[in-house]
Amino acid sequence: MEKIDTLLTGGTVVTMNRAFEIFAPGAVAIRGQNIVAVGKAEALAAAYQADTVVDCTGKIVMPGLVNAHTHVPMTLLRGLADDLRLDVWLLAYVMPTEREFVTPEFCRLGTTLACAEMIRSGVTAFADMYYFEEEIAAATAKAGMRGVLGQTVIKFPVPDAGSFEEGLGRARAFIEQWRGHELITPAVAPHAPYSNTDDILKQCVDTAVEFDVPLLIHIAETKFELDESLEQFGMSVVRRVKNIDLFRAKVLAAHCVHISQGEMDLLRDGKAGVAHCPTSNLKLASGIAPVTQMLKAEITVGIGTDGPASNNDLDMFEEMRLAAILAKTDANDPTVLPARTALLMATRQGAEALFIGDKTGSLEAGKRADVIVMDARTLHNMPQFQRDEQAIYSQIVYAGHASDVRHVWCDGQWLMRDRALLTIDEEAVLNEAEVYARRVDQFMSQREESVLSKLVAVSDLEQSESFEVQVKLKLHNRAALDALLASEDIQIVKAHHYRQYDTYFLFDDPQQGRVRYREDDFVDAHGQVTNVRTRLTLTMPTKEREFNNAVLLSYSRFIAEANRPLRFYREYFRPSAEREVQKDRQRWHVLYRGVLIYINLDTFVQPALDGLYLEIKSRTWSAMDAEFKAKLINDMMLALGREAGEIIAEDYLELG
Amino acid sequence: MEKIDTLLTGGTVVTMNRAFEIFAPGAVAIRGQNIVAVGKAEALAAAYQADTVVDCTGKIVMPGLVNAHTHVPMTLLRGLADDLRLDVWLLAYVMPTEREFVTPEFCRLGTTLACAEMIRSGVTAFADMYYFEEEIAAATAKAGMRGVLGQTVIKFPVPDAGSFEEGLGRARAFIEQWRGHELITPAVAPHAPYSNTDDILKQCVDTAVEFDVPLLIHIAETKFELDESLEQFGMSVVRRVKNIDLFRAKVLAAHCVHISQGEMDLLRDGKAGVAHCPTSNLKLASGIAPVTQMLKAEITVGIGTDGPASNNDLDMFEEMRLAAILAKTDANDPTVLPARTALLMATRQGAEALFIGDKTGSLEAGKRADVIVMDARTLHNMPQFQRDEQAIYSQIVYAGHASDVRHVWCDGQWLMRDRALLTIDEEAVLNEAEVYARRVDQFMSQREESVLSKLVAVSDLEQSESFEVQVKLKLHNRAALDALLASEDIQIVKAHHYRQYDTYFLFDDPQQGRVRYREDDFVDAHGQVTNVRTRLTLTMPTKEREFNNAVLLSYSRFIAEANRPLRFYREYFRPSAEREVQKDRQRWHVLYRGVLIYINLDTFVQPALDGLYLEIKSRTWSAMDAEFKAKLINDMMLALGREAGEIIAEDYLELG
Repeated sequence: MEKIDTLLTGGTVVTMNRAFEIFAPGAVAIRGQNIVAVGKAEALAAAYQADTVVDCTGKIVMPGLVNAHTHVPMTLLRGLADDLRLDVWLLAYVMPTEREFVTPEFCRLGTTLACAEMIRSGVTAFADMYYFEEEIAAATAKAGMRGVLGQTVIKFPVPDAGSFEEGLGRARAFIEQWRGHELITPAVAPHAPYSNTDDILKQCVDTAVEFDVPLLIHIAETKFELDESLEQFGMSVVRRVKNIDLFRAKVLAAHCVHISQGEMDLLRDGKAGVAHCPTSNLKLASGIAPVTQMLKAEITVGIGTDGPASNNDLDMFEEMRLAAILAKTDANDPTVLPARTALLMATRQGAEALFIGDKTGSLEAGKRADVIVMDARTLHNMPQFQRDEQAIYSQIVYAGHASDVRHVWCDGQWLMRDRALLTIDEEAVLNEAEVYARRVDQFMSQREESVLSKLVAVSDLEQSESFEVQVKLKLHNRAALDALLASEDIQIVKAHHYRQYDTYFLFDDPQQGRVRYREDDFVDAHGQVTNVRTRLTLTMPTKEREFNNAVLLSYSRFIAEANRPLRFYREYFRPSAEREVQKDRQRWHVLYRGVLIYINLDTFVQPALDGLYLEIKSRTWSAMDAEFKAKLINDMMLALGREAGEIIAEDYLELG
Repeated sequence: MEKIDTLLTGGTVVTMNRAFEIFAPGAVAIRGQNIVAVGKAEALAAAYQADTVVDCTGKIVMPGLVNAHTHVPMTLLRGLADDLRLDVWLLAYVMPTEREFVTPEFCRLGTTLACAEMIRSGVTAFADMYYFEEEIAAATAKAGMRGVLGQTVIKFPVPDAGSFEEGLGRARAFIEQWRGHELITPAVAPHAPYSNTDDILKQCVDTAVEFDVPLLIHIAETKFELDESLEQFGMSVVRRVKNIDLFRAKVLAAHCVHISQGEMDLLRDGKAGVAHCPTSNLKLASGIAPVTQMLKAEITVGIGTDGPASNNDLDMFEEMRLAAILAKTDANDPTVLPARTALLMATRQGAEALFIGDKTGSLEAGKRADVIVMDARTLHNMPQFQRDEQAIYSQIVYAGHASDVRHVWCDGQWLMRDRALLTIDEEAVLNEAEVYARRVDQFMSQREESVLSKLVAVSDLEQSESFEVQVKLKLHNRAALDALLASEDIQIVKAHHYRQYDTYFLFDDPQQGRVRYREDDFVDAHGQVTNVRTRLTLTMPTKEREFNNAVLLSYSRFIAEANRPLRFYREYFRPSAEREVQKDRQRWHVLYRGVLIYINLDTFVQPALDGLYLEIKSRTWSAMDAEFKAKLINDMMLALGREAGEIIAEDYLELG
């Protein structure tokens, strides 16, 4: 009798090997890191003497699941913000929080939390792309899990690198530090083609080839990404990366939602693995990846949860199941992507997509002992039919739950025993995670306590405050204005003509002010738009002071470039009401007695007001300056003549 | 201090009331069947003195989930057959098994198993449509759950009724027996418009109105159903049922996948509830229901798991989550169907769709105490952010698992305490379910042990066996055949001309025989197809005997009408290979010396063989008869002349 460490015996052993052998009752013999034999229970009992015998009667013994794409430290951002559009979610919530919080400690803790969750749900290997990847590697190795871990490279500053060169440098150092590790396969992870230049991508390929490590990348996740690639590069995303020879490296491409048949051929010929992430793709409304066609094209497709900030968990059982059922409706054929294929993608094929198929993904002698044992007798798994051997796959994929996993081994080490984690102090991790959550809460709450702070959070404010003195009137006598503009007192510095579209976001508490999104379409003499400018302004509700019953002092306008679409700000600010004002504006910057004054002459489209509206205003900085400028404006009004128009105190918003 | 039975205190109470109030820490006071108060923990602690205080600190207290559509006894068929097309699944597996096994005992046991699973996953109320509904009601009431239970009415014979009249009679008796029960709302359940006539549907409506009970029905689940309705009735499914005044009753319509905006308006105006079943719809490739549009149309939409034979579990957490994320990609907008709406559909709105919104679906004083307590501190739920009150909905829907449910009350009765079931003996149910599974296994295995028994299972065999003597030759001399046909010895009884399309299913074991699917397209003198006949034949591989080195005796052909498409049989028989033969055939039934002989003259299209092929054959019943007929055929060959052609021993399938 040969001596071994552990014998798992009596269960239904689902090997997921090439022949898809099932042994019932079967056994798995483990010595050190490795599986030394898989077969019938009786045969193995006769051949091996084990230090530890684990009775798996009534249970399913199968390979540990492979999560082909995730961002593990983002467990700490789970549920931070949901049901938002990708740009709002990413730019207004995730990235600002990451800028503030993502540190080595954050990554280590988030990884440990993720490893605990994954072990509990039967995952033994995963592919990750994030920052401070060396911390992720350390935490993963400590948890005893297998990881293909990619250090992010990206063209703009991120939490662990001020530039892409720094990111690439970190990747090289990370790879040098971790390569050859039993559990950790270091990798380089250029975030995506759209977030890198061709040159950066090439340097990443060089690094991956130099060290013979995988290259992890997001590919064609959104329709927007595809459209942008077509517009900027005149070709699809996969074609672009093929042209720069990305497939010289061992590529693991996440998502691949918006790819054509031709791109699938490129991926296959490039021997790339693909990580299919159905939950994330559905939740972010990215679309449905053509997984049936990819499999038909013989691409190696694994299944991933994506980061827990967009999923919101790391449950590969949910992911397998969704991959299987979603493909059926997408193909209008319930026979595609049967349960066995889904499980294959989550095990052996997933491991192959991660380029660790020689080590894990199936129960075979010579592979590492990455094994899980599932309770098959829970209510939702009962009864079971034996007439068809395929039924076991259907049970695992369609009825199995993460909570059915009872034992987990990785690399021969027992990680979970009867649902108790053996390498991670679960309670300590949860407590630490709570401390982080309270800090994030505080940061976010401060940010969201007022409309102003929300505005500040998403803008590079051009000007923090401004005071204006101004007068408005409905102009009855256009000739009077022309005469004023032609007068000797006035020197016209600039003249503009534009169509002005204002959208006001109103809030329940008027003291919060109003956010105005303004688009100015500048037009030339022929009425052609020559330039478009969009700006975001916070206007405060009340006027500060009144001079001569006409000239008003208003304050606190926060002006920022509006570099996102109106929709973005609408979804971010969530106003309680919205109002639109549209006008045709002639604007003059004039010097009146040497002082810069703005004169606006408006024709309203929305609200549909008759006639012309005149605004005369000037910026001001002190009470004395305001007093002085109010007097100047009053003088201009006198010059226009009492009959030129009637003074208006309301905002234009309140008219009509 | 008012006396109460139970106080759940210290948890985050998510009421799902109209104002979506959340109390943290909150409390729920229960007396008898009812909730007497919901509010802040401190306030309730001061007002009530409880016999039992349940500390819910760190947990979520919320209404029990409502499963809006299922077929509970089908737990016993869970995983019987998967990844099949609807017709194969239903006609070849589910219905034959139901015919054999669905008895009162089956329904009672299956219901108890389902109730156990649902209680464990936080469901307290469900809508069911099945057979022997009185047994389902008894088992549901015994488990302590709330049910809206519909006795099936259908136009063809089913396990509990030989006719629709019998089914309707059962429904009346069931309603009379159970109405007024605290937990059970009996209902009538015409299976679907396509499986009932207008007249039957009208009688169901009359019954529902007479007793003021709900009417449960499947509506527009598949595209096929819609197309068939358009073809047969010239209108969509909802329009058809509207025309027969279905909405006089309180209608709960399951699925509604293929409905138009106009039909949504009809459903809303008809005050119908809709049960959205995303997992089942995806898995059977039925499609994606327009749930966002239905909600916009202000239809009361709940969420259902559908039967566990097509899901394969009763997990409403998975269902809520899928409803939320699938709608986002379907609408191409991640902001639609946010988590709170998904939870609403699975609680209060679901209860309203079942017409029991007055009793359950939210935590409000006066409603029945249908309450669940979830563990919020499991790994996949951590950490939690408090900056946004909506985050709790996101946590429940996107990260929550059925296994997080710790306690369940229904109608004030504690059904699960710390994950232990209090009203069901789980182990006994599992054991009984296994006994059933073994019986079903045996039945299915016998059925599937040979190609013949599989054929018998899906066919009304027209003829069980036949023997034929036959000769085949490649005909070089057509004139010789014409001369034979014109000879005095021959009387032509019938002459046909058709195009014959044969598809052979081959199996690994040739002794199983081959299944031939034959389509004969009869053509008239102008080559127009006048009639199509499809037949299924099991042909055995070997010839039994040879006469005169030419005439062969073949046996055992099982012929059946092929009333399903070729695809159906392909998916059912799963052949290891498939071959096609296509020919143009002239066929004569002749009397030769008073004996009926068939003469076939074939031109091959596929395989592309040159020339003409002649077959002369006769049916036979005994060795002596065979000997005699072989001699007759031999005589005909002699009449044709030695040079007329060369004899072929192979099947046509083997040629080319």
